[in-house]
Amino acid sequence: MRISELVETTGVPLATVKYYLREGLLPSGRPVGAKLSDYGEDHVRRLALVRALRDTAGLPLASVRTIVALIDAPEGDLVASLGRAIAALPPTVDPAGSGPYPRAAGVAREIGANIDPDSTAMAQLEDALEAAESVGLGISDERARVYARHVRAIAEFDVAAVPTGDRGAAIEYSVLGTAIYEPVIAAMRRLAHQHVARAAGADGAGR
Amino acid sequence: MRISELVETTGVPLATVKYYLREGLLPSGRPVGAKLSDYGEDHVRRLALVRALRDTAGLPLASVRTIVALIDAPEGDLVASLGRAIAALPPTVDPAGSGPYPRAAGVAREIGANIDPDSTAMAQLEDALEAAESVGLGISDERARVYARHVRAIAEFDVAAVPTGDRGAAIEYSVLGTAIYEPVIAAMRRLAHQHVARAAGADGAGR
Repeated sequence: MRISELVETTGVPLATVKYYLREGLLPSGRPVGAKLSDYGEDHVRRLALVRALRDTAGLPLASVRTIVALIDAPEGDLVASLGRAIAALPPTVDPAGSGPYPRAAGVAREIGANIDPDSTAMAQLEDALEAAESVGLGISDERARVYARHVRAIAEFDVAAVPTGDRGAAIEYSVLGTAIYEPVIAAMRRLAHQHVARAAGADGAGR
Repeated sequence: MRISELVETTGVPLATVKYYLREGLLPSGRPVGAKLSDYGEDHVRRLALVRALRDTAGLPLASVRTIVALIDAPEGDLVASLGRAIAALPPTVDPAGSGPYPRAAGVAREIGANIDPDSTAMAQLEDALEAAESVGLGISDERARVYARHVRAIAEFDVAAVPTGDRGAAIEYSVLGTAIYEPVIAAMRRLAHQHVARAAGADGAGR
C-alpha cells in the first residue's frame, strides 16, 4: 500500500509516520518507483506497537527505539534481549545505583531462585521498597510471602501465554503484556479492596 | 517544638513547611506568644504523609488537599470517605466518562459482588482494559479469572492489615498502602516472569 493508505488504515497522521521513518522506528517501505514506496502489514503492526508504547505506556522515544531494535535483531541471546526490552519500560531507575539491592533481595528470595540479582526489575523493586519504608510501611516478611505467592501464580499464567516460535513476536508480546497489564492489575486490586472490605462487613477499611 | 525544630526533625525545608501551612496541608501550630507557634508529633506525621503523597506517589497538590481533608474530617461515612480518598490517587480518569464500564463490569464480576459499579477504580480498570484491547491484548475470560483470584487474595491480606479504631489512621493507611504497594507488586511481577520463564527451562520468554 502507499503511504497515504498506511495513514488511512492506521489513523496515524502522515507527519507522525514520516517522523517515525526518519527516526528509524518504522522501517522504510519497498521502493516501487522514483518517489514511491510500498508498505505492508508489518508496517501497520509496527505503527500500532510504536503508538502503544508512546501513547499508552508513555515511553520516551529513546526507549521505544531500544525495544524496536531488540525486536528486529535477527540473532543474539533471547533471554538477554527480553531482559533489555523489559528494562526499557518505566519506572526509570538510577543507572548509577547498580546494586546491591538488600531490600529487593529478601523479597526476590520469596519469588524464586531463578532471578538475575542485577536486573533492572531488582532496582525498581528496591526503589519501591525504599519508598514504602520511608513512609513507615516497610514490607513485612509475611506480606512479602503472600504477595510473592500470588504474583508468581499470575506470572505463570502470563508466561504460558507468550507466543513461541517467532523471536520478535515473543519480545513484542512480553513488552506489551508487561506494560499493558500492570495498570489492569492495579485497578483490579483497588476493586478487590472494595469487595473484601464490604464482604467482611467491615466499615469500609481498605476500600 | 518550634518551626525550626520541625524543619530539623523532618528534613522538610522551611519554605516548604510555610507553603504547606499557607495551603492548608499542614494545620497551624498552637500559638505560644506573639510570633511563636508550637508544633507536635501530629505535624511531623502530617509532613511525612504530604511528602509521601507529593514526592513518592507524585500527586498534584489538589489531590493531597482532598486526601488530607478526608483524614481530618471528624465524621461522615467512613466507606464513602475511603472511596473518595483512594479516588484521588492516580491514574486520573475522564470525569465526563462516568460509565457504563462494560469491559470493567465483566472483570469486576470475577472479583466479587460487593463492588460499587460507579467507583473511580471501575473507570480506571475500563481505561486499562481499553488500552489493552487497542493493542490486540484484550483480556480473555481465563486471564480475568486468574488475575481476579490472586488479586483478591492479595487484597484480603491488605485489608486485614488496616488499623482499626482511629478513622483518620485507617484512611491514611489505606491511601498510602494503595499507592505505595502498587509499584512493589508491579516490580515483583516482572521478577516473577524471570523466575517462571527460567524455571520452565523456556528460552526466556516472558522475562
